[in-house]
Amino acid sequence: MITGHVFIATSLDGYIARPDGDIRWLLERDDPREDHGYTAFIADKDAIVMGRGSYDMVATFDTWPYDRPVIVLSRQLADAPVPDRLRGQVRFVDLTPAEAMRALEREGARRVYVDGGRVVQAFLRAGLIADMVVTTVPVLIGAGRPLFGELPHDRDLVLVDSRSFPSGLVQSTYRLPP
Amino acid sequence: MITGHVFIATSLDGYIARPDGDIRWLLERDDPREDHGYTAFIADKDAIVMGRGSYDMVATFDTWPYDRPVIVLSRQLADAPVPDRLRGQVRFVDLTPAEAMRALEREGARRVYVDGGRVVQAFLRAGLIADMVVTTVPVLIGAGRPLFGELPHDRDLVLVDSRSFPSGLVQSTYRLPP
Repeated sequence: MITGHVFIATSLDGYIARPDGDIRWLLERDDPREDHGYTAFIADKDAIVMGRGSYDMVATFDTWPYDRPVIVLSRQLADAPVPDRLRGQVRFVDLTPAEAMRALEREGARRVYVDGGRVVQAFLRAGLIADMVVTTVPVLIGAGRPLFGELPHDRDLVLVDSRSFPSGLVQSTYRLPP
Repeated sequence: MITGHVFIATSLDGYIARPDGDIRWLLERDDPREDHGYTAFIADKDAIVMGRGSYDMVATFDTWPYDRPVIVLSRQLADAPVPDRLRGQVRFVDLTPAEAMRALEREGARRVYVDGGRVVQAFLRAGLIADMVVTTVPVLIGAGRPLFGELPHDRDLVLVDSRSFPSGLVQSTYRLPP
């Protein structure tokens, strides 16, 4: 059984990025002296699924930050070649969330990190997320790309843990009962 | 110096009510065995400011829940008579947030409970909120009336406290530096 797992930061008003995708407001408020748990989170994940927006942003970094297979869900990119430096690490595919998870399951993946606003929303709608670590940054940015979107019905969550940091981050872990 | 204070609950996806104003999803998830701090919060408030939506909802309750002066900001209601049972307790006024706060200050109020989505947003935009207690309910409802709205610029917050409850509520208190 393959499961999706979210680890994401949001402004208090629910945005993961500004309308143009900018996340400097987030990076500027990241206190490197605090361990927010990403290393522990990623340690038991077998693969990463993200959308075009996340890929485009991460691709601008000097170094590719992932050491696990990455699938980018994008109709537009699906026919494009993967850049040389990412060959063997990244695949561009035009698949639904369920299709992507079945493909990863056939390859032996069990726990998948699901990242990016629209991809997280699509996986939530498809019932493919087992748990979410949501880190709330103490800032209101007023507009942007929302973490959450429309759902076919209410979704009850179980709070597993909540902790706060001196920087003002509040990190809550929720389980999504099947 | 008069200050505004918020004490409000939101779904994890940032809604204080469904699109039609329904808050049963919230009331159903309120565990009466838990003290979420409303009594302590209201104890040092001198007055309450709310919008038409909050007033209409509270007015349907069998008993009026407030024992402090209530101002309802509503252009539409401003010319309407206050219902008999609420006379002396409620005023309908067509004032901006700043005007309402000046009027309350002249009457001796110092700490004002500001309630309701659009009213909270307007007070935030006007810089009239000193602190907010935001209680996050562990449910995604997919659509509704948002707690937060557009802002003229980013607003940094200071996390004062965060705690969670066995029911899964996460309650965070933020101070808004002037």
